[in-house]
Amino acid sequence: MAFQDHFPIWGKLDQDQQERLAGSLLLRTVPKGKILHNGDMDCAGLLLVRRGQLRAYIQSEEGRQITIYRLFDRDMCLLSASCMMRSIQFEVTVAAEKDTEFWVIPTEVYQRLMEESAPVANYTNELMASRFSDVMWLMEQTMWKSLDKRLAAFLLEEAAIEGSRELKITHETIANYLGSHREVITRMLRYFQNEGMVELSRGKVTILQVEKLQALEG
Amino acid sequence: MAFQDHFPIWGKLDQDQQERLAGSLLLRTVPKGKILHNGDMDCAGLLLVRRGQLRAYIQSEEGRQITIYRLFDRDMCLLSASCMMRSIQFEVTVAAEKDTEFWVIPTEVYQRLMEESAPVANYTNELMASRFSDVMWLMEQTMWKSLDKRLAAFLLEEAAIEGSRELKITHETIANYLGSHREVITRMLRYFQNEGMVELSRGKVTILQVEKLQALEG
Repeated sequence: MAFQDHFPIWGKLDQDQQERLAGSLLLRTVPKGKILHNGDMDCAGLLLVRRGQLRAYIQSEEGRQITIYRLFDRDMCLLSASCMMRSIQFEVTVAAEKDTEFWVIPTEVYQRLMEESAPVANYTNELMASRFSDVMWLMEQTMWKSLDKRLAAFLLEEAAIEGSRELKITHETIANYLGSHREVITRMLRYFQNEGMVELSRGKVTILQVEKLQALEG
Repeated sequence: MAFQDHFPIWGKLDQDQQERLAGSLLLRTVPKGKILHNGDMDCAGLLLVRRGQLRAYIQSEEGRQITIYRLFDRDMCLLSASCMMRSIQFEVTVAAEKDTEFWVIPTEVYQRLMEESAPVANYTNELMASRFSDVMWLMEQTMWKSLDKRLAAFLLEEAAIEGSRELKITHETIANYLGSHREVITRMLRYFQNEGMVELSRGKVTILQVEKLQALEG
């Protein structure tokens, strides 16, 4: 079963634990755009991405969003099982950015493994530390870095993920990634266009000068 | 030994583990202002506060600061032992805000306990989740909440901690808490003063109208 190859501490479980885990798994496929978890829903369980792309974000009361991290093949989403730990006092929403196939590990199965196995608990620790680091990085970006630098970095990252300089993305979507407003993003993109760094067309941003964006990103 | 009363999972350690832990402890006292840990220093170990007050913050290249959390009696500082986990990819500075007495648990002793004991690993998980939650809260504050609300909340929190409405604190220090500039804080405090909420004098902010600050905090 391919799950074993995606779960790095499989070999540290005893046979009984492996059987319990394997027997509880659910393989799901969701289309792009589907919301998999948010604060109001039941605890969805841990999600292990087989292929696809997920996005975790927070949302203000007025509906503004900011992406806190993205998950790719083999990444595990811990916060979709936040009910597992009483010290997690915040809510994220997890949505599919592409058609995504993933395994669900039911919360109570994982929680029991974590309680009886130090390797599972320590693996969970490393996952949490890694997400925590993502958020600290984001915090530093939003506190100390100006929006033009963040927008340049976002466009370059997006081009790397998509393997294309032609990005099919709306200004609204970019605003939701960066925790900004659509109008602000539009203004900044127009400035980028005037500088010859990008070209804008309906629902599309095309990168013309990678080097200039990289220089701006700093 | 009082350490046992401060360390909630003491009873879940076996005798050998208890002896190793107790034998490795160091009780230290530092004066207000002392920096206990920062990214450039060696891994200080885990700090368990016996009495006093610590502050963890991040700093920009230009020297701007923002407080990410504060630790009081019985709180444990995990990030001062960040070398323990390879997934922690950020650097915080930890400094004493008051004269503080604390135990140091050497990193390698704690790390070994964590590797062999699921309760220790899960306790560490909860600690990390709790700090992670602090930072997510802060992130939401800085993203969605305006500075006047954050300043009102800070003054009320500070008054609660000190048990006094007369706060001996400089505008520079407040700016370092909130990740802002001294000039911006001074302007906002003067606005608060004009509104009759506070009175300013050299090195001091006195709260005159708690209710008005609470209403502003929202």
